[in-house]
Amino acid sequence: MPARLGEFDLIDRLRRRTAVARRDVIVGIGDDGALLRPRAGRDSVLAVDTLVAGVHFPLDTHPRDMGWKSLAVNLSDLAAMGAEPVAALLALTLPNADRAWLDAFAVGFGALARRHGVALVGGDTTRGPLSISVTVIGEVPRGRALLRSGARAGDLVCVSGPLGDAAAGLALVQGRIDGGIAITRRLRRSLDRPTPRVALGIALRGIASAAIDVSDGFLADLGHVLRASGVGATVEVARLPASPAMRRLLPDVRARAPLQLAGGDDYELCFTVAERRWPGLLRKAAAMGMRPTVIGRIEARVGLRCVDAGGGAITTARAGYDHFALSTPHPTRGVGRADPPNATRSRGSRA
Amino acid sequence: MPARLGEFDLIDRLRRRTAVARRDVIVGIGDDGALLRPRAGRDSVLAVDTLVAGVHFPLDTHPRDMGWKSLAVNLSDLAAMGAEPVAALLALTLPNADRAWLDAFAVGFGALARRHGVALVGGDTTRGPLSISVTVIGEVPRGRALLRSGARAGDLVCVSGPLGDAAAGLALVQGRIDGGIAITRRLRRSLDRPTPRVALGIALRGIASAAIDVSDGFLADLGHVLRASGVGATVEVARLPASPAMRRLLPDVRARAPLQLAGGDDYELCFTVAERRWPGLLRKAAAMGMRPTVIGRIEARVGLRCVDAGGGAITTARAGYDHFALSTPHPTRGVGRADPPNATRSRGSRA
Repeated sequence: MPARLGEFDLIDRLRRRTAVARRDVIVGIGDDGALLRPRAGRDSVLAVDTLVAGVHFPLDTHPRDMGWKSLAVNLSDLAAMGAEPVAALLALTLPNADRAWLDAFAVGFGALARRHGVALVGGDTTRGPLSISVTVIGEVPRGRALLRSGARAGDLVCVSGPLGDAAAGLALVQGRIDGGIAITRRLRRSLDRPTPRVALGIALRGIASAAIDVSDGFLADLGHVLRASGVGATVEVARLPASPAMRRLLPDVRARAPLQLAGGDDYELCFTVAERRWPGLLRKAAAMGMRPTVIGRIEARVGLRCVDAGGGAITTARAGYDHFALSTPHPTRGVGRADPPNATRSRGSRA
Repeated sequence: MPARLGEFDLIDRLRRRTAVARRDVIVGIGDDGALLRPRAGRDSVLAVDTLVAGVHFPLDTHPRDMGWKSLAVNLSDLAAMGAEPVAALLALTLPNADRAWLDAFAVGFGALARRHGVALVGGDTTRGPLSISVTVIGEVPRGRALLRSGARAGDLVCVSGPLGDAAAGLALVQGRIDGGIAITRRLRRSLDRPTPRVALGIALRGIASAAIDVSDGFLADLGHVLRASGVGATVEVARLPASPAMRRLLPDVRARAPLQLAGGDDYELCFTVAERRWPGLLRKAAAMGMRPTVIGRIEARVGLRCVDAGGGAITTARAGYDHFALSTPHPTRGVGRADPPNATRSRGSRA
């Protein structure tokens, strides 16, 4: 029998596990709302993302990883805006209050919150099917936020790190690809414990012309930037960065391309930058241990074109994942799988 | 067959239905996050609340009312802080994208959003069991937010309007009380379409010593104020304001007291105020069509005491609703009802 907790005990456990003190948090948990004092000359950035068990993560995901990931996907949105994280609110729907589950969840959530100085300032716990909705607020110097709409013809298209690891991890977990235990564990970790690129996002302010995080899938997400900016792009598939584990699992570029192009959940940043800014950016990124990669170029002609090393066009049937258009099969989803599937991709639609 | 929508179509429909333009919203829906520009000298107030079908509203609730209520319960939190609403983010989990459902939801949400000038600045739609999580942000002049912690011995305990209507509406819907069609319809409306007391909350700034909204149940919510303020109170049960419909349904004060004391979902404000401020407040409230009622007094002795008209103590077995302590029956919940019940009370625990 799992130990049951009352509601206030539950909130209190989360608060203690995730406590981060900030001077701009005047009132945190414990009133009708949280009271924050924005710094002068700053804009506020707000984002929300929900994770549903069996939809956004496999049902066997460790609660510690659910805690981490539910905050990570939101901090990734702040990173894509170039914002510094400030605080988070957690709306947790749980079938029952299991103390061990909750402690593990709080450990994962708290580890990432402390790393980025994020205060948990509000919460709401409800009985129901497991669902985790996190809202984050961040700040950015006035008028300096990174938007999707600034890409210009001639800009380089870049990504902050390897693509496709999370999708490969899911495919391995679901038995759709065979891999050894070590590779499976490594790639599953990319799925369960994504790293939001917060410091890089801040470093990109005033340098990148547009940015987005890779959550729905690289093609879908770059597509959002292109539409918002009114431009097109050509991407060289062979240049997509792949992790060592991915290279060992799928040495052939063509075999891993579907996972890299359409698989979501990577939470790397995809950004555009004027060519003359690239060398300086590369040095700045290197100083923080990051090595972004140029994978294409923005063009005036609308549309997204993928080419192989020789410049030949590659057909890409599917550009992203849509929660509400399930008649089209998703490349990383098993054929004939029950609906809802045991585990699928991406964070759903974002707006 | 319900018409199915793609994700962006879905977000776009919501956006169009709920569009409110604000100068302090620099970027709304359509980027990784929303970008707001807080006014100088203002504090930000943040609150989140989740509504789960069958837990927070009866399963037969009209989607228009779900849209209204999901925003109303959050605006009520802002009202209790004395904050002016600015913007909302909506995390919607839906079993499937039914165009008619979504349009109706947007109509209800949008009607209340426009009434209070709330911009919908972010959204997230996910496939899963129906769940609606709304985050609101509001603003209040620096240092002027109403808190739960300011009640002082001698202050009057007041409520902004009738208590118990929503609980009675639920009891009628569930067949636990008999009432005519007209009364049932009237009280059901209190359950489905609560009115957040936003203007009154703003008017209470600098006048009320503490405030909270009545969501979990009057005793539970006043209890939060007492604990936060380190004081106690005596409440005269016969003074609890009751609507005409409630008086017709349950003319006997003792019969309606359980619904009024422990039933949640009223979203009236409960506040405390120094006696000398009361006449001025009453005039100010009257000017906005409100008639708050004095129902008790704050005392130095901790604890919450309920007395009848003669001053005799009334035993109150249960002070609120706890989502995760279901072994204790809830006064407004049917005995022997399946778990989760078809419809229950309150918004769950808040922090």
